[in-house]
Amino acid sequence: MEEKRAVTMDKLVNLCKSRGIIFPGSEIYGGMGNTWDYGPVGVEIKNNVKRCWWKRFVQESDNSFGIDAAILMNPTVWDASGHTASFSDPKMDCKECKTRHRADTLIENHSKGAVNPDTMTNEEMEAYIFEHKVACPKCGKSNFTNIRTFNLMFQTSRGVTEGDKDTIYIRPETAQGEFVNFLSVQRTTRAKVPFGIGQIGKAFRNEITPGNFIFRTIEFEQMEHQWFCKEGTDGEYYEFYKQKAHEFLLDLGLNENHLRFKDHEKLAHYARAACDIQYLFPMGWSELNGIHNRTDFDLKRHQEYSGKSMLYNDPFTNEKYIPFVIEYSIGADRLMLALLSEAYDEEQLDGGDTRVVMHFHPAIAAYKVAILPLQKNLGEKARELYRKLSKQFMCTYDEAGSIGKRYRRQDEIGTPYCVTIDFDTLEDNTVTIRDRDTMSQIRMNADEVAAFIQQKINF
Amino acid sequence: MEEKRAVTMDKLVNLCKSRGIIFPGSEIYGGMGNTWDYGPVGVEIKNNVKRCWWKRFVQESDNSFGIDAAILMNPTVWDASGHTASFSDPKMDCKECKTRHRADTLIENHSKGAVNPDTMTNEEMEAYIFEHKVACPKCGKSNFTNIRTFNLMFQTSRGVTEGDKDTIYIRPETAQGEFVNFLSVQRTTRAKVPFGIGQIGKAFRNEITPGNFIFRTIEFEQMEHQWFCKEGTDGEYYEFYKQKAHEFLLDLGLNENHLRFKDHEKLAHYARAACDIQYLFPMGWSELNGIHNRTDFDLKRHQEYSGKSMLYNDPFTNEKYIPFVIEYSIGADRLMLALLSEAYDEEQLDGGDTRVVMHFHPAIAAYKVAILPLQKNLGEKARELYRKLSKQFMCTYDEAGSIGKRYRRQDEIGTPYCVTIDFDTLEDNTVTIRDRDTMSQIRMNADEVAAFIQQKINF
Repeated sequence: MEEKRAVTMDKLVNLCKSRGIIFPGSEIYGGMGNTWDYGPVGVEIKNNVKRCWWKRFVQESDNSFGIDAAILMNPTVWDASGHTASFSDPKMDCKECKTRHRADTLIENHSKGAVNPDTMTNEEMEAYIFEHKVACPKCGKSNFTNIRTFNLMFQTSRGVTEGDKDTIYIRPETAQGEFVNFLSVQRTTRAKVPFGIGQIGKAFRNEITPGNFIFRTIEFEQMEHQWFCKEGTDGEYYEFYKQKAHEFLLDLGLNENHLRFKDHEKLAHYARAACDIQYLFPMGWSELNGIHNRTDFDLKRHQEYSGKSMLYNDPFTNEKYIPFVIEYSIGADRLMLALLSEAYDEEQLDGGDTRVVMHFHPAIAAYKVAILPLQKNLGEKARELYRKLSKQFMCTYDEAGSIGKRYRRQDEIGTPYCVTIDFDTLEDNTVTIRDRDTMSQIRMNADEVAAFIQQKINF
Repeated sequence: MEEKRAVTMDKLVNLCKSRGIIFPGSEIYGGMGNTWDYGPVGVEIKNNVKRCWWKRFVQESDNSFGIDAAILMNPTVWDASGHTASFSDPKMDCKECKTRHRADTLIENHSKGAVNPDTMTNEEMEAYIFEHKVACPKCGKSNFTNIRTFNLMFQTSRGVTEGDKDTIYIRPETAQGEFVNFLSVQRTTRAKVPFGIGQIGKAFRNEITPGNFIFRTIEFEQMEHQWFCKEGTDGEYYEFYKQKAHEFLLDLGLNENHLRFKDHEKLAHYARAACDIQYLFPMGWSELNGIHNRTDFDLKRHQEYSGKSMLYNDPFTNEKYIPFVIEYSIGADRLMLALLSEAYDEEQLDGGDTRVVMHFHPAIAAYKVAILPLQKNLGEKARELYRKLSKQFMCTYDEAGSIGKRYRRQDEIGTPYCVTIDFDTLEDNTVTIRDRDTMSQIRMNADEVAAFIQQKINF
């Protein structure tokens, strides 16, 4: 039997907008091509996602090191990586209504996923579209141009001297930052292969068909880890990172039944193996996390284009070689969408009311605790506790409306604990802590709250 | 008597490069116009700087809320903000060697800071340069064109339909993200004026004369807080944020004698007051932190250009008004440069050796503790402690070389504590903790180390 989930994309988008999680970008100006601004609640959630990732993949990982490379890189980097030559989407213009579309998306939608355009050449895609008279999603006619390719990189120019218009690119991926710094990191940390480099940073793609909320956007944040290892050990580490990736997603609270591995049907010419971890988003199964065995392709290309040796000198065996790379990459925004989708629930309460509740892992929740004085004249005591706890983690304070209404507000943004201050608190310094998921309440000394919460929010 | 500091810019740049703090961007390709990549040590320091800031200005601040707005905004935002019309530098080309220069920089350097070009019109700057025969820094001749202005915003184009080449900009500042989201934040948090919006994010400027390491770069990260308040209270809050800014810098460990307030000599037409906090960098006094009373200019402009009301409806008095804004802005990279400059020291040791030591606040240091087994066969016990502590904070592990050499390595990156594992550790589970600054050592149980460090790294 198919599982029934309460979440839909519309509900998520509306909740995010109304509760300060995610707003449409430049909203007062009618938006800006699927950009999104993280609001007061969303920025905390996203920062928590990034912190959990960094903790797992850098801080607690033996022999892994972080970096934060510049978004603007020397343009030759993109020649070496192959992006200037071939980082493009196959696009067709509708001759009737003049709109532009991705050929692969047209085929996917027309075949309802039955045909996989990733394995087709441009000629095969054209043939399919013409033969099946695939309709323009805008005007409904079927009169397309042939496929043309448009590079997805945003271009700009540096221009520091007259007449000089150096074209530079806003990075379309973060990976090259790890590759070009491979030897600098190795040298300064005196790391021995195998070792890893992790990075979190923004990347930009001039997509014509972004969509599905924060799933595909022109500006997004990647969390990425490249593992440099010796050829021959690459297969083992590829499997290791597949498992590590999966475990991380489970630990964050994603349901095992909503995750699946999907091997790439068409491998890049240099890749030895590649797979995605897909998540069952509200719009269906889609890529969440990629793990790729990129061989020594990237470092070799940089050696070729930069003229700088990328050889690693093994201090134990005195061998010199260019390491293989196991790439792990996940979008912070996309992971946040998965966590939002997973957390969303609607529960029927006694009395016929419905509560919307976000069951985030406490480490992910924006506010760890809400401080709620039962009445306004308890505000002084409540503020005192709020200020004390705020030194340790994000807290929120709410004294407006009935206590039930205030609980609902916290449920909707996933605050795991609510602390209620009442008249007994003034007498004996005890407070009530209410659990978001079970709605059960316990009484404890106010001085014990910090340690209680701290222990729950560990990741 | 003038204070003698060991730090110079050259020493900092070299230390940063050799110890994995900051590398030149795209270094293997000969660099990329003053971009910098943060290495394994630098990324931790910078993240710590950002965390301390967020804690102080968002987490612990009553009625302050964070956001994270997109870098790519609707282009009308920059019409409203005035950037498309007038965000430019006055530039002159040398007719002899064809290089381009900022007129204000030419004057500043020629007069050795005695003349302040900020108060001069373009005509006055031209007159000064021609009259004083200011020389081209490149070729030494004095034969400049008149001043022309070039917009500092990087442009790119969205281009989603054929022929359509929408020009968009890579944001030159983060502030507009806070302004356009003002009412969304207020509405979703039910905040009452006065309240604040804080944001950390990247901004980009097509500067022709970046320089002084990470002081001025084409890509930088701002930490910014806008306080929305009622006219009449703005003067008081302006003073409040000046003091709060100053206190934050002192708490991070900047020397009071290396900080000074500097009121702007020339106010923007809309500003009521503006000042910088300058820091005594290795190259001299320069702007570190700006505090501006921007009045209601920004919100009014957005109301005008978007057609959306920016009125705040006071629930207590039923007044409707557009709030004033007190802007606080500091560059994360620039603050990091100040902290690096402040921390750097060279100490003469007994025996004639010099130790380079970075006296970072423990909250800022990349690694909180280094785990050093006295001999390699103590590695198992040492690794056990390393793994345990790594769950709580960033640690590093080093078993190569003499213990003295290993201490020096940690001193150079500012690790506040070193824990030595020796043979007694195997017997009684005690370890030696060595303090970076005093070099004194104490003995404690290994199980107490986590709590000892945790308490020291609080900010």
